[in-house]
Amino acid sequence: MTATIRENATFTQVVRFEVAPEKQEALIAAIVAEVERWVRFRPGFVSSTFHASLDGRHVLNYAQWESEEAFRGFTRDPEGERLSAAIKAAGPEAGPDGTAFRVVRSIAGTSR
Amino acid sequence: MTATIRENATFTQVVRFEVAPEKQEALIAAIVAEVERWVRFRPGFVSSTFHASLDGRHVLNYAQWESEEAFRGFTRDPEGERLSAAIKAAGPEAGPDGTAFRVVRSIAGTSR
Repeated sequence: MTATIRENATFTQVVRFEVAPEKQEALIAAIVAEVERWVRFRPGFVSSTFHASLDGRHVLNYAQWESEEAFRGFTRDPEGERLSAAIKAAGPEAGPDGTAFRVVRSIAGTSR
Repeated sequence: MTATIRENATFTQVVRFEVAPEKQEALIAAIVAEVERWVRFRPGFVSSTFHASLDGRHVLNYAQWESEEAFRGFTRDPEGERLSAAIKAAGPEAGPDGTAFRVVRSIAGTSR
């Protein structure tokens, strides 16, 4: 399975967590469950890709939205309280720490 | 133009910088020039996608490699000294701060 990074015009929110290695998998599972339950049905949601650091201590959610307005709408959804509660219950040491980006350039390799 | 996030088996290196807003564009340009000159021709390089934070203060390079071994080979390439020099000349306030990840799950929206 693959996801696509759309260049330009797309709003990218990178959300990071620090976590104890023994809780990394459960933290991802908790957020995935909420994204599948309601976030993915929000207008303008493009994709959310979950990353587990190889050292076990970080989780990164690379989320793309059609626009900043779509993202802001998500953050105002009352269901967000359950997402926050699920994250809190999973017990990260830090985060969510989100930063909003725009994709400015993508360079592909020569081997594919 | 789009780039693809390949799930599983792919080694993802997320590299972050903190930067003064007036230097953000030049920092990205400096790294892009090096990636285009030699990094993209390294065996196992999949893609490198550059992100500028909307607040001007962060740069994120989302880089994918076929394997951790391919990435390690890149870090040992003598050309890396010029990449490091180019980054230093662009004057970031912090970074490069790299974290190695594996993609564990990608969820697509319903609107495309």
